Amino acid sequence: MIDQLEKFGLFFEEKALLQFQSLMLEKDYSKIAILCDSHTHDLCLPIFLSQLPTLEAGKLEIVELEPGEETKSIEVLAQVWDAFGALEMDRHSVLINLGGGVISDLGGFAAATYMRGIDFINFPTSLLAMVDASVGAKTGINFGAYKNRIGLFTEPLMVGILPEFLETLPEEEFLSGWAEMLKHGLIADAEHYRGLIRRKPNTSQIDSALIAHSVAIKAEVVAQDKHEGGLRKILNFGHSIGHALESWYQQAGQPLTHGYAVALGMQVELSLSAAFAECDINEVQALQRDLRKFYPVPVLKPQATDLKTMLLGDKKNKGSHLRFSLLRSCGAALYDIEVPMDSVLEHYNNYFHG
Amino acid sequence: MIDQLEKFGLFFEEKALLQFQSLMLEKDYSKIAILCDSHTHDLCLPIFLSQLPTLEAGKLEIVELEPGEETKSIEVLAQVWDAFGALEMDRHSVLINLGGGVISDLGGFAAATYMRGIDFINFPTSLLAMVDASVGAKTGINFGAYKNRIGLFTEPLMVGILPEFLETLPEEEFLSGWAEMLKHGLIADAEHYRGLIRRKPNTSQIDSALIAHSVAIKAEVVAQDKHEGGLRKILNFGHSIGHALESWYQQAGQPLTHGYAVALGMQVELSLSAAFAECDINEVQALQRDLRKFYPVPVLKPQATDLKTMLLGDKKNKGSHLRFSLLRSCGAALYDIEVPMDSVLEHYNNYFHG
Repeated sequence: MIDQLEKFGLFFEEKALLQFQSLMLEKDYSKIAILCDSHTHDLCLPIFLSQLPTLEAGKLEIVELEPGEETKSIEVLAQVWDAFGALEMDRHSVLINLGGGVISDLGGFAAATYMRGIDFINFPTSLLAMVDASVGAKTGINFGAYKNRIGLFTEPLMVGILPEFLETLPEEEFLSGWAEMLKHGLIADAEHYRGLIRRKPNTSQIDSALIAHSVAIKAEVVAQDKHEGGLRKILNFGHSIGHALESWYQQAGQPLTHGYAVALGMQVELSLSAAFAECDINEVQALQRDLRKFYPVPVLKPQATDLKTMLLGDKKNKGSHLRFSLLRSCGAALYDIEVPMDSVLEHYNNYFHG
Repeated sequence: MIDQLEKFGLFFEEKALLQFQSLMLEKDYSKIAILCDSHTHDLCLPIFLSQLPTLEAGKLEIVELEPGEETKSIEVLAQVWDAFGALEMDRHSVLINLGGGVISDLGGFAAATYMRGIDFINFPTSLLAMVDASVGAKTGINFGAYKNRIGLFTEPLMVGILPEFLETLPEEEFLSGWAEMLKHGLIADAEHYRGLIRRKPNTSQIDSALIAHSVAIKAEVVAQDKHEGGLRKILNFGHSIGHALESWYQQAGQPLTHGYAVALGMQVELSLSAAFAECDINEVQALQRDLRKFYPVPVLKPQATDLKTMLLGDKKNKGSHLRFSLLRSCGAALYDIEVPMDSVLEHYNNYFHG
C-alpha cells in the first residue's frame, strides 16, 4: 500500500527523507524556503531539520506565519509573495510547506503563482493534512465570505509523511483527522473502517500503514476524477451537514474541529442514507453508535431552522432539494442523491433533538 | 497559415465568431462575463456584440476596468474576483477578455484562479496583443516593483482575432504591435520581415494573413519550449535593452510604447549581433536603417550610465556579463550569448550618441 502511493508522489518515513534529499541533490535549487506557522515552527521544524543534516544552511530560509484559518487570506498571500521576493527566490527555488492544511493550501498556491510557478513540496504535520490535504492537488485561499474561493488544482513535487509529527498534535486535532480516515473507510473500504473503529484514536494506535491505507482510498478516487466532475463527490460524505454545523458552531463561539463537524455530519447523513440510498437501517444505527462514541452530539446544538439557514448560505445548495453523497452500505457510496430540504431537516431533528 | 493556427486555439474573423458561438452553444455557460477597459468598452464592445446577436442578454455581464498598466495589480485583481462573486459566477461560467495585453494578462489569471479555474477566452483588441499576447499562455499581474511577478502559464479556451478592432487603435499603438511583428521576422523568418518592412505600417496595409504569419512564428517557438527553458528566449530579442529603455523613458516622463522601446532595443542589439553573433555588419546596418525610419532615436535619450542603472535593476542581469538573444542573420537568432556590460554600453553609446 505504502509503495503504491509513490506513483502519486507520496513517500513515508525514511523513504520520504531519502526522496527529499535526492530531489534536493538532483534539482540543486537556488533557495530552499520552509513555510510554517508558529506552532509547527516550534514543534515540527526542529524535528524536520534534525533529520536532514545535509540541508545547506546558506540556501535555507524560514517563512513563519500565524496559525489558523484566518491565515488563508489574500493579505497573507501577498506577504508570502513579498517574502519570496525579499529572499530573492527565483524560478529555480523551492518551497517546503511544513504544517497543516492552511500552510499547504496557502503555500502551494503562493508557489504555483510566483514567477508563473516554482516547485513546492508538502510535509503535512497534522493527521488531517496527512490523510486529506496530502492528495488531491487543491491549493488556495479564502476570499470574501467564501472558503477556498481562489485557488488552483496543482500538484506538489512530492509529499513526505513523517508520523512522528503526530506526537506534537493536541488530541482534538488528532480526532479531527481520524474522522476523515473513518470517512474514507465508510465510503470505499468497510474493512479499513472496521480496523479503525476497533482502535482507540490516539497516536500509539496509528502507523504509516493505516495512514497510507486512508490516503490510498482518496488518491484512487481523485485519480479517477481530478477536477471534481463526478466520483470525487463521494469524498464529500458528511460534509454538507458537516460544513453547516462547522459554520454554526463557529458563529456560536464554540468552534468544532473540521473532523468533529464532519463526524456529526456523517451521523445525520447516515440517517439520510437509510431513507434515500437504501442503506440498511440496522447498519446505519450501528455506524451511528460507533461514531457517537468519539464524536457525541454537543450539548449546545442548532435548531433545525438554524441548520437550514447555514445550508442555504452554501452556494452549492439552491432550490428546495439538496444533493448529497450518501452510503449504500458501509464501504460503498453514491453521489448526487437529491433530498428535499424538509426531509434533511426532519432527519436532523430526529437525530440531534430526538 | 491561418488554418494551421486553429490547432493552437486561434481563429480569425468569421471563423472566430463561428467557433465562439459554437463553444457557447456546446458549453451552455451559466454566466458569460466580458472583461474590458473603458477604451475597449466604448470602442470595441459595440462592434463585438453587434456581430454576436445570439448572445443571451440575460447571461451576459460586463466588468469594466481602468485602462493602463497600473490595472495589472493585486488590488484590481481582488476587485475582479469580487466582481465574479457579485455576478454569482460559478465553475461553469466563462470570462471573455476583450482588450489588450493588460486585460488578457489580468483576466486570464483571475479566471484561472477563481474557484480553481474557470474557462476564459481572449479577443485581443490591440495589434500587440494579437501578435504577442494571443499565444504563449502567459497570464499574471505586476507585484511590488516587478512586472509579471505573479502569474501562471495557462491556456485560454480559444483566441479570436478580429482585425476590425485595429481601426480603433491610435497610430502609436499600431506601431507598437508592428515592432513585435518585425521582431518575429527578424528572429525566425527573413521573408516575413521583408514583406512587412516594405509596407507602410498602418491598418490598410495589414490583414489576417500577415497577423497569422507573425503569430505562427511565435506559436511554433512557444510550442517547442512552453516554460521558457531555452529556445523561447529568442523572443526576447530587442527586449533586454528595450525594457531598460522603456523603464528609463517612463521615469523621465516621456513614456514610449512597449513596441517602440523594443524597436530601439533591437537596433542596439543588432550592433551587438555583429560583434558577438557574427552577424554581417552590412546586413546589421541595413536593418538598423530600416528600423530607424519608423522608430527613430528620440531627441531625449539616456546616458550610458543611466542605461547601466536600468539594466542592473533587472533581476535577470547579474554580474559583469549580460545574456542576450542576438541575430546570426536576418531570420535566425541565437540565445544565451554572454556580452560584457562594458561592451553593451559601448555599442549603445556608439548607436545612440555616436
